[in-house]
Amino acid sequence: MRALVVGATSWGCTLALQLGRAGTEVDILCRSMEEATDLARTRENRRLLPGIILPESINFVVEATPSDLVILAVPAQHLRTNLRAVLPGLAKLAPIVSAASQVVEEELHAAGVTAPIAAISGPNLAREIATGQPATTVVASADAETAAMLQAALMTASFRVYTNPDLIGVELAGALKNVVAIGVGIGDALNAGENGRAAFLTRGLAEIARLGVALGANPLTFTGLAGLGDLIATAASPRSRNRSVGVELGRGRPLDEILASMVHVAEGVPTTRAACRLAADHGVDMPIAQTMHRVLFDGLSPARAVQELMTRDPQAETSGL
Amino acid sequence: MRALVVGATSWGCTLALQLGRAGTEVDILCRSMEEATDLARTRENRRLLPGIILPESINFVVEATPSDLVILAVPAQHLRTNLRAVLPGLAKLAPIVSAASQVVEEELHAAGVTAPIAAISGPNLAREIATGQPATTVVASADAETAAMLQAALMTASFRVYTNPDLIGVELAGALKNVVAIGVGIGDALNAGENGRAAFLTRGLAEIARLGVALGANPLTFTGLAGLGDLIATAASPRSRNRSVGVELGRGRPLDEILASMVHVAEGVPTTRAACRLAADHGVDMPIAQTMHRVLFDGLSPARAVQELMTRDPQAETSGL
Repeated sequence: MRALVVGATSWGCTLALQLGRAGTEVDILCRSMEEATDLARTRENRRLLPGIILPESINFVVEATPSDLVILAVPAQHLRTNLRAVLPGLAKLAPIVSAASQVVEEELHAAGVTAPIAAISGPNLAREIATGQPATTVVASADAETAAMLQAALMTASFRVYTNPDLIGVELAGALKNVVAIGVGIGDALNAGENGRAAFLTRGLAEIARLGVALGANPLTFTGLAGLGDLIATAASPRSRNRSVGVELGRGRPLDEILASMVHVAEGVPTTRAACRLAADHGVDMPIAQTMHRVLFDGLSPARAVQELMTRDPQAETSGL
Repeated sequence: MRALVVGATSWGCTLALQLGRAGTEVDILCRSMEEATDLARTRENRRLLPGIILPESINFVVEATPSDLVILAVPAQHLRTNLRAVLPGLAKLAPIVSAASQVVEEELHAAGVTAPIAAISGPNLAREIATGQPATTVVASADAETAAMLQAALMTASFRVYTNPDLIGVELAGALKNVVAIGVGIGDALNAGENGRAAFLTRGLAEIARLGVALGANPLTFTGLAGLGDLIATAASPRSRNRSVGVELGRGRPLDEILASMVHVAEGVPTTRAACRLAADHGVDMPIAQTMHRVLFDGLSPARAVQELMTRDPQAETSGL
């Protein structure tokens, strides 16, 4: 079997490593000949995954190669462009893995191509997987054969892969957890403690699940590895960009200044806006996302935000679920 | 309103503080006149909650006083004795809060007394609540009036209280999380990383929920504050006795030596045995608890345990749920 990983990102290189360990040949599609040549020579992504040797079994290419599996590991804003670049070179029916199945579906439809679509998500800090520490993930696809194929292509003794048919739930969980991660950072900056952090993660997950269910997802997906698991790992990671935005907000820095100083996009910021819009459209109560929205865009102070969340009307724990 | 807290433990003193903040008068029933006199004089539990001032509004007593609410804050193994000591002095129908409702029910029945029963559980590291950091908790009772009364008696701007009718679920979540906490400690000792820890917490919670549902609990309780929330806070606490047992096991120390060196009981050890027995009786698959059982009692090495859990047959994520 041969896989094409689109994007020499830290996640792309990590998935290529893991596919290689499980016995799949991998080509990584690079942005430029310069990038491909450099990676092929140094066998190390010094900027994004320093210290990790990328073995000779990984090839670096600049044009899409025929493959049994295509994994898109590029940032969301570059997804469409990358997909258009690789589509013409693909054999029909090679499964496409992406974090945004709707975009993939649209592009496949426009190109008149059919292919099964899947997502990979979970508590997957790339560096730990690259170094071979134990990890688990979820491969989600409405097509059971595709999910099973991906499970077999990725699973090793240090990387345990579960299947889940709930593609939309897995994607939503992966995106919405970034809203909660910003709030975790705010709480950390305000020294909210372990009780406060645990409460915030728990109540944050509850409202993410409420929105997910309204959008057709399975609630169990949110208590699984792509929901709860990813959220715990993200909240624990000092490298999380979304958590970092929250820490800076909690210290009183204005959002535009924080975002201007960041090289990478903190997806939780636009996702907070999207989540609140969806919640309003579907009549879902999301007090945490709505409060985050006011902190991010309406000048609500972080300290006041915590106070407001703590002093809402007394409630039953499972109201709205 | 007047509450009687049985046990000048760190949790007992913390609940007394919180009840006082919310406007309830509190008597703490001490083990001895010496303990009561000392606490009344120093206004500090130097051994269990050092540095926290217990205000004059808290009384330290050595005999049960008439009260509108009784909270048992003693270790499980002393619950029955303490309950028998206070029952004769109680007005009928004063709600009784305990982490073991079955024991309370049995004792009430034997004494021919009727009273509503409730539990308080959540991500509640006592010290953080004592110092006034933000926290949330769940009051569980089949009796809605009792739950609402406790919610009102405890809630302040820094302590948010949710009600939940699922008493058995809240109790099970609080007990079973200790099994997972031991495993978290083992993983930490083996440097399993944040991905591994997040996976272990997620899959551990899933199997706890499976057992809970088989025993009549509501699955949502396990994804709530008394389940997920308590588990996250416990896993994050360096003071957790159960996590500490796991860390020592992971370092290769034998269980009997670890337990002999501890002043307090690590409840997760007997709970692991009980959980595996219940799982067998109800035909519930609990791979993590069963593996913990083999590490604790059958000499399975922690490294081998991790390996076995990682290399089980490939699965769908929600199988058995």
